[in-house]
Amino acid sequence: MSDKGRILSIQSHVAFGYVGGKAATFPLQCLGFDVDVVNSVQFSNHSGYGRFGGTKTSAVELTSIFDTLELNELLNPSRLLTGYVPNAEALTAVAEVASKLKKQKPDIIYMLDPVMGDSGRLYVAPDVVPVYRRLLSLATIISPNWFEVETLTNVPLKDMPSLRRALTILHTDYKVPNVTISSIPLQPWLVDAIPSHLRPTSEGPHLLCISSSSKFKSESESDRLSSVHAQCVPLLPGYFSGVGDLFSAMIVGHFEPSDASSLPSGKTPLSHAVSCALTKTHAVLVATHEYSEKLPLEDRLPTDDEQDKVEPMRKIKRMKGRELRLIQSMDIITGKAIKDLRHMEPWTGFWEEL
Amino acid sequence: MSDKGRILSIQSHVAFGYVGGKAATFPLQCLGFDVDVVNSVQFSNHSGYGRFGGTKTSAVELTSIFDTLELNELLNPSRLLTGYVPNAEALTAVAEVASKLKKQKPDIIYMLDPVMGDSGRLYVAPDVVPVYRRLLSLATIISPNWFEVETLTNVPLKDMPSLRRALTILHTDYKVPNVTISSIPLQPWLVDAIPSHLRPTSEGPHLLCISSSSKFKSESESDRLSSVHAQCVPLLPGYFSGVGDLFSAMIVGHFEPSDASSLPSGKTPLSHAVSCALTKTHAVLVATHEYSEKLPLEDRLPTDDEQDKVEPMRKIKRMKGRELRLIQSMDIITGKAIKDLRHMEPWTGFWEEL
Repeated sequence: MSDKGRILSIQSHVAFGYVGGKAATFPLQCLGFDVDVVNSVQFSNHSGYGRFGGTKTSAVELTSIFDTLELNELLNPSRLLTGYVPNAEALTAVAEVASKLKKQKPDIIYMLDPVMGDSGRLYVAPDVVPVYRRLLSLATIISPNWFEVETLTNVPLKDMPSLRRALTILHTDYKVPNVTISSIPLQPWLVDAIPSHLRPTSEGPHLLCISSSSKFKSESESDRLSSVHAQCVPLLPGYFSGVGDLFSAMIVGHFEPSDASSLPSGKTPLSHAVSCALTKTHAVLVATHEYSEKLPLEDRLPTDDEQDKVEPMRKIKRMKGRELRLIQSMDIITGKAIKDLRHMEPWTGFWEEL
Repeated sequence: MSDKGRILSIQSHVAFGYVGGKAATFPLQCLGFDVDVVNSVQFSNHSGYGRFGGTKTSAVELTSIFDTLELNELLNPSRLLTGYVPNAEALTAVAEVASKLKKQKPDIIYMLDPVMGDSGRLYVAPDVVPVYRRLLSLATIISPNWFEVETLTNVPLKDMPSLRRALTILHTDYKVPNVTISSIPLQPWLVDAIPSHLRPTSEGPHLLCISSSSKFKSESESDRLSSVHAQCVPLLPGYFSGVGDLFSAMIVGHFEPSDASSLPSGKTPLSHAVSCALTKTHAVLVATHEYSEKLPLEDRLPTDDEQDKVEPMRKIKRMKGRELRLIQSMDIITGKAIKDLRHMEPWTGFWEEL
């Protein structure tokens, strides 16, 4: 097992199941990283179950951990991964550490997942948003979802000009060199906009994953703001938790900026890392979906908001049956069980006005 | 990767390094277990560094997690592993869960590591001791060290009669079916007492590991209290933290009572599990020792209590250099890099008075 260095991972902890740190730590360890794990909450299970117990780690508690690590000269990771932090005070404590690490080691790889919400709904306190905006300039890579891009940039994404504007804001105003947006629903305007070779080759609903690197462009792209890559992935039915957390962990685990020169033409370190992350995350998701499909009917009753309210166990059992099959996917995570990569392909013409 | 079932692991969490849950979770996950992780503390690093920050999880917080898991029907592990819990209130909350699980599922495999102290010194509050005594009857296996056996039984271990008396108390009064005692310094009386084929074959200091099963005896042993096995392991110089935590995790991960009939004659499920655990733990320790020996001198200054007090970084750097090389030992943990098992051998005559 090769020695990949240390990652400091700051995100949520759940006793049961795989979201936040529980979705990130084991995969990164399997890739060979020593992971320094700081838990922003300790909950029984993720909040999607409807009922959860446990506590949030206060800013004072977080600071006590960070300060002692620093005092003991144990705060020197080569990579930093931050995810869900429940409130602005705690996130400010995390921001102080990120800032300190960046000053100490300007080439630290900081993967910032600005976990704020999904599908039009914030699930953190609103005062978290400006703290994330201030944090952006420290990040090497960010992995917002569709809604988080809109929240950070104040740009509603409805067409190519707005998508270009949002990426321009992130790269130029917020100085983020690498942006990846996963799981974008393939709306008609997006299908029309993507080059034909990127369109789905199979039937059924798909999601689009985009990566955009302003830092690593080929010579032919020197007049462009960034090098954009994309890939369509079949959408699996139903909702799985922790997928974004696993995806971000896999990106930071596979990102190797020093390899830029050895990459095939047209790839960037980000597009390569996202290709690996997308391939592995999708494979884990397929394994999870197949497992959940075989469960008894009572463990996979379909979402029904009214029924779910009356019988909380309906939803809880559904959530339980959809926990990521992470442990059983070790060979996927290490790459042993991966035959072909889902390559992120160059989106030529992204920056050209239609 | 085979599906080994769920283990609920309740012990300490440190951000940096490998003790408690950080020494147990990854190895158990590598063996194929889904591990439900409840943290009894969240510290920056282990207390042996001299300086540590963070917080203990209160009994109320623990109970909130356990109660929600139960309410959500997520509290049904096939195995339970408990380690360091810092005070009697928190341990009482853990005892309630253990008791509940045992009632629900009488054949649950409960590995109880009664973490209380080492080398004559308690490092938990004294009122923890009676709570551990009450917990013993629920355990399938316990893994006290030498000092913890003395503390639990009130028997100072100084000769074979006292060792027999202590094991009798644990098996008979406290009803523990499986006891393992690792890392017993090979004092002269112990060297004299062990059968010649168990004595060390190499020079240098050794430790003795003993396992004793009252539940799984061969027919020829039916008049004995238990079936005792032992093995000597070379003592590596210096102190390594988290070794006991890794050892207990590996025992519970390898313990298969249902395999009793398929085991070679003279083995018990416990002696087999301890053989695996001892082999792997020792191999990880050798890898750690080799790594630490190659560090610059300033990172491995020898213990010097006076100097260490004046310059805390001396000790801190030493501790850091001696953190278990767990991530780099994945192939040891899965067994891929293990050629031969260090077999626990039957200690025939253990129960015969000399």
